[in-house]
Amino acid sequence: MPRIAYVNGAYGPLRDAAISIEDRGFLFADSVYEVWSVFDGQLGDLDGHLNRLERSLRELQIAMPMPRQSLVTVLNEVIRRNRILEGMVYLQVSRGAAPRDHVFPVGVKPGIVITARPVDREAAAQKAEHGIKAISAPDIRWGRCDIKTTGLLPNVLGKQAAKALGAGEVIFVDKDGLVTEGGSTNVYMVGNDGVIRTRSLSANILPGVTRLNLLSVIAESGLDIREEAFSLEEAKRAREVFVSAATSLVMPVVAIDGTPIGNGAPGLVATALRDAYIERARRTAGV
Amino acid sequence: MPRIAYVNGAYGPLRDAAISIEDRGFLFADSVYEVWSVFDGQLGDLDGHLNRLERSLRELQIAMPMPRQSLVTVLNEVIRRNRILEGMVYLQVSRGAAPRDHVFPVGVKPGIVITARPVDREAAAQKAEHGIKAISAPDIRWGRCDIKTTGLLPNVLGKQAAKALGAGEVIFVDKDGLVTEGGSTNVYMVGNDGVIRTRSLSANILPGVTRLNLLSVIAESGLDIREEAFSLEEAKRAREVFVSAATSLVMPVVAIDGTPIGNGAPGLVATALRDAYIERARRTAGV
Repeated sequence: MPRIAYVNGAYGPLRDAAISIEDRGFLFADSVYEVWSVFDGQLGDLDGHLNRLERSLRELQIAMPMPRQSLVTVLNEVIRRNRILEGMVYLQVSRGAAPRDHVFPVGVKPGIVITARPVDREAAAQKAEHGIKAISAPDIRWGRCDIKTTGLLPNVLGKQAAKALGAGEVIFVDKDGLVTEGGSTNVYMVGNDGVIRTRSLSANILPGVTRLNLLSVIAESGLDIREEAFSLEEAKRAREVFVSAATSLVMPVVAIDGTPIGNGAPGLVATALRDAYIERARRTAGV
Repeated sequence: MPRIAYVNGAYGPLRDAAISIEDRGFLFADSVYEVWSVFDGQLGDLDGHLNRLERSLRELQIAMPMPRQSLVTVLNEVIRRNRILEGMVYLQVSRGAAPRDHVFPVGVKPGIVITARPVDREAAAQKAEHGIKAISAPDIRWGRCDIKTTGLLPNVLGKQAAKALGAGEVIFVDKDGLVTEGGSTNVYMVGNDGVIRTRSLSANILPGVTRLNLLSVIAESGLDIREEAFSLEEAKRAREVFVSAATSLVMPVVAIDGTPIGNGAPGLVATALRDAYIERARRTAGV
């Protein structure tokens, strides 16, 4: 079955799906995106991602490409046409296509692209059983990482550097030696006091939707969580480290820069939180 | 006459020119670009821009999309098909199209897009006679602005902010209060001692091709030039300020943040350098 994409009003085969070479997403990274996990054919935290999408667009003064309810209809139609039960949906909205000029074009409609693909949950679960290795890298991203733009080259380079060293994620570290976030994840540590820490949103980081839900899961579980900066060195000495994102959900980190975290195996807290997070995400999907 | 674009091996009408929605230029800003001025149908500083293109690609480990001489043939063919005498050529090379994943795809050919458009030199000359206003803004760009990538959203936002205030350029200022560069230009000041200053390439700035040529022109003219940082405040008190880029060439700045520069009119040095630069660019075009 060919994969189907939605592009600027039309559904068609992904292999033919194209945008104008004058789309500002292509020319300027003048676009934002969201990724949803799909559980049993339903969008995980539909509203959380839509809220963030609206915020990203507002910050960049890009209009919503269609009313929110219409967008939900299209997102679900892309899931249906691709027959996705377990998978992910990718949405990108650009400022639209116009002759190349940095300043905002006038009278141009936003561009919109939606794709979906299946995810092998079994393989993901096995990956989580082993955890992933990470490397660290200086955070050289721009100053508005709170907006989920497609200006992702620093993330691309960081994750490629990780892959070249056999790792699955890069952990960005600011000039003060403090962890900001991962290349495509938020980062958490569990100290020897049992307290979970993750960087507060006052730093130059993305307000993760999965992060927000995970904070709720943690609070409900009665664990101690603080939105507080920690250093790379603290992370390396931590009992556990883990990352979260819409696609990888909660993923244990078993080593950073070759230093084993804890006993070098996925930790109890991360593993329990992954299960609890997935249970909650499945239960609330489609809402 | 319809404008013609070159996209991944084929020439066709610009209005239909499209790239895959999986092109990494669109998904990740994983692409670089160059802009040439065209004088009398010839590419201005052909080699200077090709050298920088090769450097940008090398830094990102993207292959040249074709041998350099073939690329020159295509660039000239785009000029010919668009019947450009006075104008500009835009080239963008991406890492190519592949299913969305941050890490570099394997076995994927780079994507390439080339367009051209005429430029009204008369109108540009009139603009230079009046000069442009500029605003300043904190430099929040990423840490590798020496690579000419399409991750230009901070530049877009800066230039839009300038436009909203009736200005034509944004001047980025680093945390130390020092000017880095403009939204799409390099920045120069002429002090009351007559010395011209522009930021050295050791800062996080683009090695401007026009900048390099302009430095030669300045040296030949016998003026005193120093590649040395200057503050926004020094610029505001300067005798002259001007910017350079492949398209705007040399453009006087007559005010920054509402403060007139010098007597508020284009300065003698900037005006003379603009003429000398254009004379040299015309004389050497196509080489």
